[in-house]
Order: sequence, then structure tokens, then C-alpha cells
Amino acid sequence: MKQVAILGSTGSIGTQALDVIARYPRRFSVAALTAGRNVSLMAAQVRRFGPGLVAMGDRGAAEALKKEIPRDVRVLAGEEGLRAAAAESGADVLLTSVVGSVGLGPTLAAIEAGVDIALANKETLVAAGSIVTAAARRKGVRLLPVDSEHNAIFQALKGHRHEHITRLILTASGGPFWQRTRDDIQDVTPEEAVKHPRWNMGAKISVDSATMMNKALEIIEARWLFDIPGERIDVLIHPQSVVHSLVEYRDGSQIAQLGTTDMRIPIAYALSYPDRIETGVKKLSLSDFGGGLTFFPPNEARFPALTLARRALQDGGTMPAVLSAANERAVELFLNRELPFAAIEAVVSAVMERHTVVSNPDLEAVFEADRWARDAAEKAGETL
Amino acid sequence: MKQVAILGSTGSIGTQALDVIARYPRRFSVAALTAGRNVSLMAAQVRRFGPGLVAMGDRGAAEALKKEIPRDVRVLAGEEGLRAAAAESGADVLLTSVVGSVGLGPTLAAIEAGVDIALANKETLVAAGSIVTAAARRKGVRLLPVDSEHNAIFQALKGHRHEHITRLILTASGGPFWQRTRDDIQDVTPEEAVKHPRWNMGAKISVDSATMMNKALEIIEARWLFDIPGERIDVLIHPQSVVHSLVEYRDGSQIAQLGTTDMRIPIAYALSYPDRIETGVKKLSLSDFGGGLTFFPPNEARFPALTLARRALQDGGTMPAVLSAANERAVELFLNRELPFAAIEAVVSAVMERHTVVSNPDLEAVFEADRWARDAAEKAGETL
Repeated sequence: MKQVAILGSTGSIGTQALDVIARYPRRFSVAALTAGRNVSLMAAQVRRFGPGLVAMGDRGAAEALKKEIPRDVRVLAGEEGLRAAAAESGADVLLTSVVGSVGLGPTLAAIEAGVDIALANKETLVAAGSIVTAAARRKGVRLLPVDSEHNAIFQALKGHRHEHITRLILTASGGPFWQRTRDDIQDVTPEEAVKHPRWNMGAKISVDSATMMNKALEIIEARWLFDIPGERIDVLIHPQSVVHSLVEYRDGSQIAQLGTTDMRIPIAYALSYPDRIETGVKKLSLSDFGGGLTFFPPNEARFPALTLARRALQDGGTMPAVLSAANERAVELFLNRELPFAAIEAVVSAVMERHTVVSNPDLEAVFEADRWARDAAEKAGETL
Repeated sequence: MKQVAILGSTGSIGTQALDVIARYPRRFSVAALTAGRNVSLMAAQVRRFGPGLVAMGDRGAAEALKKEIPRDVRVLAGEEGLRAAAAESGADVLLTSVVGSVGLGPTLAAIEAGVDIALANKETLVAAGSIVTAAARRKGVRLLPVDSEHNAIFQALKGHRHEHITRLILTASGGPFWQRTRDDIQDVTPEEAVKHPRWNMGAKISVDSATMMNKALEIIEARWLFDIPGERIDVLIHPQSVVHSLVEYRDGSQIAQLGTTDMRIPIAYALSYPDRIETGVKKLSLSDFGGGLTFFPPNEARFPALTLARRALQDGGTMPAVLSAANERAVELFLNRELPFAAIEAVVSAVMERHTVVSNPDLEAVFEADRWARDAAEKAGETL
């Protein structure tokens, strides 16, 4: 029986993970769940899956939850709750499906406790890739990517040699606006930006997909997960989102993982690894795509986020953390209608320009850069 | 230094293999070469690669060759020459790139001598799959597929578990005529049939590609190579020939190998396995395919060869050998303008109907069925 803890169980990835877990009551048991403020859904999940430990985003939500669930469930709140769920719940694997850099501390705590990580929080590796991967190596802990692209690459690397890799190719749906000009996206509303054409995702990642900042973060994430320099990680727009990513080897072979656009496939793969379980997901039929599978090189002038990611990798140190945190704050401002859609990348770029990189940062330096970048993004947003 | 023997070195696969070998003079050495009647090309290959043993299809060609090459090269002829090249040349790996069931005996001799097989002769496994795979298992010899489809599946299986496979999906270019009706292909000439739209191949395999008998043989070959029942081996027409084949796993993931249409990639993979070497082949760029990658289910009424293959697998025993041999003879008749193109499958079907299956055949029974099927095909061709 594999004990699973989920950070962010009421979100899009969290609920889909519980859908997979519900199919295998004798294979998986839920050790801990955490959520922000969705008390009613969390209460239902607690009754259905019976975790011993639950955490909510704040004390108010935790108190409200206590009234709706059995008394023997331990209920915590805030950062302390996330850490306890990650590292003290007896989990064998932790699914980190919270959004943003809040996932970093609990993930590191879990790694120190020897818990495998099913990584659905890309900001963790973006902000602190060298720290997290070094800790995982030291503890012999697996980092199992849940992002469909990185999960695809993980699968496409299995059985093949690292020294034979010439390129990683991350595919990108391009989001809802990739065929529109920059002039044409000035007035995009939050409602338009969160409607993703292919994937059923949360709000922040949908906005990131529309700016391709999501792909920018994924380049940095891939660099750490697979130990491949950023110059050898390409992006290809693939609107059908069927080929989830590819690895090119030195003989000219490319190995790809394909599937329907259903996150339960990579979630199930990460949770059941090294086994592979049925997911109940509709099987892919390539002949259903009458218009064919198409691929386009991204226009980096149109999508400055990709250039920012490559610059952040070159600068190294705290710069990727700054990129990620500035973007998080800019997206929040946009979702609150305090920043135009087309200004998100300009805010991130302005913050990066103002940042003085700390090389080989420790965790405190990463958190400090993160805080600084959020403030700087707020200020940049006001002046842009 | 890996010693390589090549059966069929002057053919399409053989010359491309030597092109790969020429790039790696310190990795590969040529132990033996065989060819049919192309004395001048063989003489040039002998001078270039210096094999110790050479065999030609008949004594006349062997005598003619002797005059053009150094005296210390051992020159043999016929079946005896093929067997010596395969099993007595000191080769570590044998590339079986002869066409037709003539490859079977030498391949088995090589397996008995402990030589790994780079398998480019699909008739070997079609005719005697159970005998060949049992011998390879017993001797601990590798069967490394060179066919682009089976090589793709071999790569897509590496690192994954056999028990997780739900389906193999062989892609097919469809050949030059797949969009034409059966009425419209009655008068196809040998010249039209050997012009393949994507691959640079020999005459027999090009005709097999046009009838999709090539794909039919590949279904049978895949059944033996990968130990998957024929019912779980599908075919998908993919005119661009970029996705070389796919494996579907039970979670809904499909793993594919992709590449340009250049046989040097699978040849190099089989020769260098388990290493992977640079091939000098142009790298695949998916965005070059502006019209997209398209996939179509094959119409088995339009391509009766696929149905014949499934029937042969169900009947088992000597029936696949009969299918393959009857097809070989029918293709010869077509190339000699003694049989219309559209009658090839009818000849094979008629021969299969007349055949009394021998279950669990030994090698002699396979050869006997092969001989019988060629005669029966000749007769069927006259009466159709």
C-alpha cells in the first residue's frame, strides 16, 4: 500500500489525482491532504479518503473544516500545515500540486524525510533547482515529474543513455492567443486568458500558458530535472497537444510520448512509478486528428517569456527565482485587473533587470530574492 | 572492434550499412560480405573494407570476382557461401539484408554460432518465427530489428515493461497507391510500383509496400520479435513516414520513435547496439511538415494483404511461410510482367486456401511449405 500526501488537493491536479487514487483503493492510501480555502470540498475529500492529517491555508478555514470532519483527523493551518503534510504524515510519495513558490519549503522538508516527490509545482525547481536536485540525490529520493511535458521526457529517456541525448524538445499548445499579434492581445481579460484550448487547468497556469511563461518555466525545470543545458532545450508549438514532448538522440532518433490531453495519465505514472496503471482515460487514436498534427517554431519576439527564461538560466543563481516570483505577482495583478495582460512579461523583464544575482544561493537567499521580486513586480506594475 | 558480416552487401540496406561502417573504422571491421551477381560493386566493396570472406550468388559470379580482388580473400558461392559468411567468418553481428526466404538457413546457422542478428530480412521471422526466436533464446543471441518500424518499436519498448503493453501500432506510408481504388491499380507497371514515395528501397520491398504485403509481413514479424499476439498489432497509414511506429501502454501513454526517412538510423542502431552512434543523417525538424503529420486507418478491403496476414497468424504452423513464399513468387511474376499487379494478393490467397497447415513445423517442414507455395503460386498465376 503506497501512502500518498497531496499538497493542493482541491485544485485541478489534486482532484484528478484523487480520481486516479479512487480507482485503486488497495494500492493507494491517502496520508495527508492540504488546500487553501475550499472547506466544503476538503471536507468531502476527508470523508471519502480518510487522511490522518489535513491542512488549510489559514486558521479560519482550518477551524471551519474541523466542524465538518471526524474529530480524530489532525487539522493544521498555513506553512506549518504544508510542512507537516509533506514530511510528517508517513507518506511514501508527496504530490506537490500547489501553485507558486509556496511549494518549495514543504518539498524540501519531504525530501529530507526521504519521501519521493511527484512534482506538479514547477516553481520549486525553477526557484531552487540546484538545492532541490542536490538534496534529492543526497537522500536517494525520486523526483517524478507530473507536468505532461516533463513526464513525457521522463518516459522518453527511460532505457536510453543520458550521454546520447542531443536535444530535449518541449511541445507547447501555444495557449489561446499564439496566432494573435501582440497588438491584438493588449485588452485580453482574465476570463479570456484562463480559457485554455486543450487542457483543463488552474487559473495561474492558464495565464502562464497564454504568455508562454509556462513554457519558459518548463525550460528551467527541464534543465534541472534532466541535467541538460538550456541551450539544448527547444520549444515547438503543437496546437493539438498530442505529442507531449520529445527527446532527440545523437543518431537522429527522436523518442516521444503521446496521449490524450488528460493529466490523469502523467499523474498516475508519477504515483504508480515504477509500475504503470490503467487510468480509465480515453485511448489516443491518431487517426482522429483529420487535420494532422502540426508543429511550429515559436516566435520569441512574440513570446518574450522564452527569451527571459534563457537569460535567467545564463545568469543563474537567484535569477530564475526572481523570474518566477515576479511572474507570480504579475499574474495575480492581472487576474485582479490591476495589470494589462500584455504587460506581464514587461514587469518580469523590468524586475530581472533590477536584480543583483546571488550566485550559489542557499535557501534563505532564494526566499529573499523571491520576496524582493514580488515587491519589485508590484512597483514595476504601478509604473508601467 | 565489432566484426560485422553482411548478407546482401550490394543491395539498398547493405550499401547503406557500409556507409555507416565507413564512418567508424575503429569501431567496426567487416568480416564477410555476400551478394548475388553484382561483381563490380562487390569488388569495390572488398577493396574498400577488406573482408576475409566473400560469397556470390553463383559460381560464375564468384569466378569473375576472384579476378578483381586480392588472392588471399576466400571466395565462395551459393547457399554454402551464405552460411560460411554468416557462421564461419568470425562475425560478432550478422546483418541479414538479403531478400526472401533464402535468408533463413544462414540466419539460423549464425544464431547457432552465437552471432547477434541485425535482422533486415523479414521473411526469416515470417516463415520460421517460432524456430528462430527459440534458437535465439537458447543461444542468448540478440535479434536486433533493422526494419524502421520494428526498430522504432524496439526503441519504444526499451526501459518499459512488457506486461504494460496494450498495443503495437505499425505505421505504413501506404505506398504509392493507397489513395487509388482497386479498379484504378489494375494496370500498374513494375516501374510505377517500385517508385516509393518516401523510402529508398529495393524492388521487392517496394512492390510489397504498394500492396501493403510489406506491412502484412511486418505484423507477423512483430508478433515474433515482441511476443505480442497479432490481434494487438494495429496498422496506421502515415504518409509522411516520420513516426516510424508506436507502442501503447495500459495507462494510455504511447511511446513513439520518430526520424527522417533514412534507413541509416535503424541500421546504425542495430549495428552499434547497445551504444548509439552518430549517423550523419539530417536531423528531423517537425516544423518542416507544414501540412502536418497525418494518420489514417487502413481499409482492409482495399488492402487484403493485412487480412491475409492475420489469417496466417491464426492458422499458424506453416501458413505464414506459405504466405511469404507465395508472395515472393507472385512479386517475381509481376516484376517479369507475367502477372498483373492487382492479382498478387489473389495468388497469395489462393495458395493459402490450398495449403494444409503443418503445426509446430521443424525447419524441413518450413522449407517444404516454402517450395510448395512457390510452385502453387506459379500455377495459381497461370489460372487467374
